[in-house]
Amino acid sequence: MRNLTLLTDFYELTMMQAYHYAEAETGRKQMAVFDMFYRENPCGNGYAVAAGLAQLIDYIKNLRVDDDAIAYLRSNGTFGEAFLDFLKTFRFTGEIYAVPEGTVVFPGEPLVRVSGTLIECQLIETAMLNIVNHQSLIATKAARVCWAAAGDRVLEFGLRRAQGPDAGLYGARAAIIGGCHGTSNVLAGQLFGVPVGGTHAHSWIMSFDSELEAFECYANLYPKACILLVDTYDTLRSGVPNAIKVFKKLREAGKQLSYYGIRLDSGDLAYLSKRARIMLDEAGFTDASIVASNDLDEYLIAELKAQGAQITVWGVGTHLITSKENPAFGGVYKLAALSEAGQEWQPKIKLSEDPVKVTNPGVKKIYRLYDAATGKMKADLITLSDEVIDNHADLTIFDPLATWKRMTLKAGEFTVRELLEPIFAKGECVYPEYTVAQIQEYAKKERDTLWEEHKRLVRPHIMPVDLSQKLYDLKQSMIVKAR
Amino acid sequence: MRNLTLLTDFYELTMMQAYHYAEAETGRKQMAVFDMFYRENPCGNGYAVAAGLAQLIDYIKNLRVDDDAIAYLRSNGTFGEAFLDFLKTFRFTGEIYAVPEGTVVFPGEPLVRVSGTLIECQLIETAMLNIVNHQSLIATKAARVCWAAAGDRVLEFGLRRAQGPDAGLYGARAAIIGGCHGTSNVLAGQLFGVPVGGTHAHSWIMSFDSELEAFECYANLYPKACILLVDTYDTLRSGVPNAIKVFKKLREAGKQLSYYGIRLDSGDLAYLSKRARIMLDEAGFTDASIVASNDLDEYLIAELKAQGAQITVWGVGTHLITSKENPAFGGVYKLAALSEAGQEWQPKIKLSEDPVKVTNPGVKKIYRLYDAATGKMKADLITLSDEVIDNHADLTIFDPLATWKRMTLKAGEFTVRELLEPIFAKGECVYPEYTVAQIQEYAKKERDTLWEEHKRLVRPHIMPVDLSQKLYDLKQSMIVKAR
Repeated sequence: MRNLTLLTDFYELTMMQAYHYAEAETGRKQMAVFDMFYRENPCGNGYAVAAGLAQLIDYIKNLRVDDDAIAYLRSNGTFGEAFLDFLKTFRFTGEIYAVPEGTVVFPGEPLVRVSGTLIECQLIETAMLNIVNHQSLIATKAARVCWAAAGDRVLEFGLRRAQGPDAGLYGARAAIIGGCHGTSNVLAGQLFGVPVGGTHAHSWIMSFDSELEAFECYANLYPKACILLVDTYDTLRSGVPNAIKVFKKLREAGKQLSYYGIRLDSGDLAYLSKRARIMLDEAGFTDASIVASNDLDEYLIAELKAQGAQITVWGVGTHLITSKENPAFGGVYKLAALSEAGQEWQPKIKLSEDPVKVTNPGVKKIYRLYDAATGKMKADLITLSDEVIDNHADLTIFDPLATWKRMTLKAGEFTVRELLEPIFAKGECVYPEYTVAQIQEYAKKERDTLWEEHKRLVRPHIMPVDLSQKLYDLKQSMIVKAR
Repeated sequence: MRNLTLLTDFYELTMMQAYHYAEAETGRKQMAVFDMFYRENPCGNGYAVAAGLAQLIDYIKNLRVDDDAIAYLRSNGTFGEAFLDFLKTFRFTGEIYAVPEGTVVFPGEPLVRVSGTLIECQLIETAMLNIVNHQSLIATKAARVCWAAAGDRVLEFGLRRAQGPDAGLYGARAAIIGGCHGTSNVLAGQLFGVPVGGTHAHSWIMSFDSELEAFECYANLYPKACILLVDTYDTLRSGVPNAIKVFKKLREAGKQLSYYGIRLDSGDLAYLSKRARIMLDEAGFTDASIVASNDLDEYLIAELKAQGAQITVWGVGTHLITSKENPAFGGVYKLAALSEAGQEWQPKIKLSEDPVKVTNPGVKKIYRLYDAATGKMKADLITLSDEVIDNHADLTIFDPLATWKRMTLKAGEFTVRELLEPIFAKGECVYPEYTVAQIQEYAKKERDTLWEEHKRLVRPHIMPVDLSQKLYDLKQSMIVKAR
């Protein structure tokens, strides 16, 4: 485990020292609540898929300012010995709530809620945002790509174009959470137990005197997972006919063909896949896979499918691993409440000229409301932490920016679920470990609670995220007071 | 140092096993030369800045398939014991040439040239591309941002939006190489010795009863680097006047104000900076810095400067650390030559329907040609490795796709430099370590060899990258033969 404690913005440390100094001066310890949330779904999607919690947990557990770090900070000249002494024994002692990885989430909702000393809340801001922003971005992108593939297998092939080793590694993890069936990334396979796959490159074909020879050699070694890359010389005149020759030989030799087929990596994938399908079918290889790669994204996949492309497996690289269309998830971390140790929380609000940028004050939680008959999601309701929402009475919810938009859910006709789960209590992790496969399964169930209208790639139907009357009133009164 | 040996695509391993098997069968060891190059400058730039070599070197030095990795690979079911035994003692034994980090480079040029056994060349493909693509991308983006800032200080502020910890860490490194003056990333400061900076967040201001109190507390603690964030409540009516009050107090107390000023993080940065400049100047703080942040990129910086914005320091986050406009550097790794051990290299070519995608065959090097009078770059010339180019005779070069475009450099009126330097020889690193500051300095000199026309953000003048007659003839004859 790497020590990422100093993976933080310098200003977190200057603020921490200042808070530490103030504590020493006044003897009063300031406690704080921060929310991590985001304001806009990436790529115009109708939702996001939360991811990265496992790595956030590792990071928090491993917070230690080691001797090298102390020496480095001392050399900077900004930090005094009292603060450096404090850092030497610094551990996270606070409380963290978060939505489970794989949860479908919406703008404005706290994905992570941190409470603790102002000092510790501040330290973890940057790395938390880094980790959760990255993985939520890629998980969401993967969900889009897999939706476009409409049940076909999608493989994550982007390692070489990822923004550094971690982006490849944790990006592969997030892609699987978002619905991908496997990755080319071997290290991700080792560390996360996810399926890995892939066959050969153009260089393989080029290292032989002929394409046929290259195919034969490969097929003899790997008859059980034999996808032949057919576009090195001429896809339809050389590649596919040579692949068929090899498959025939395997069949004649009595070999069981399980996962076999061709990969297209250039040219028009709709045309080539349709022609190749006919050629394979005519030779009796109706169950041969046709894998396609080459700069694919969700829009191209949807269009290729609409054009009847005969592709059964999609290898998606650059566009997925970088979320190329929108390579940053805009998660932020904002102060929601303050108190002096032992006293009541004082809600805090950050104003902005832009109404959607005004933060929601106070210690909050999220209730998710489902239609009891269909199990589909109706809305999310953000409330203060002391509010209890249940389905024993009618519930009227309203849009906090357009308050005339109201909806009443009838008692018994809806179900209720709280989204935020305890992750750390008094600095100790209280959350179980889940495998990536379990998280992927949960994420799939989460997406199943959405109507297809919410999953459309372009201008999807928007899910309501409302505030409880009590939270709404608190927010309005704080805005009025601040103005 | 993390073990990144399995940070590779699965197909590299299946190909490696196949090559290993063929070696064992035939007793013949295939040797190969691969080139890493890219086809298009990111963001429409006129050049790219090569970066990531130091991390590539670390990766190669640390290649070791450890016991856990062997156990994992065995569990996959694809690999036999003979190959796993081979992997246990696998080390890189080949030769690597590369352009130094910070070098200005152009499409089609080999940035890295690897020769060795086909097996070892194949293993390192994915991680090499991952590392060099990422850092070259961010270094190039930083060069664009710094060019737009026209000599103003630029700070890298993007850690929280980077695609994972490495993207933040090595992205900060690359941003410094590309010209940034500092980063907010403390870990980058520790590991690479680069300047770090930053002051406080909105949460700092919100944790006090008043903005003035927050400013005073901060200024008392950090009088030597005192940049106050002025947009929490109202920039011109509250933030700037309060900051001025604090600076006056410091001045009255006889404190030496060295690096001090304000930070703007919202609103119209042109208008606000001009108004703030007047207010600061009128109070006698003509040397106060005005730092700006908030979703900046090179285009906005150029426009703000054109509108007379009075900003002296630019904090650039998301757009820089993700290269948001174009988040992937399309570096590829292609087979250039093959041989059996001890025999001559046989050049290899990869054809494509698209002329710019046809690879350059053979073992190659790059000569850079400069105008002797101005020191400015004239062109790059890719040659075969046995060719010698010097300035003792006239040199005619031509565009390899539009061969009628010719230019003759007169003997003595130009100078010549070879770009590729030896990095590994027989598996041993032969390249010195440079500090990031040294690389940054070299990169600046590199950019100084370009005319401003090559650095323009939009549709810059294109630098010629030509092939020697000998390489051109080889390529043409191989194309004709293959067709």
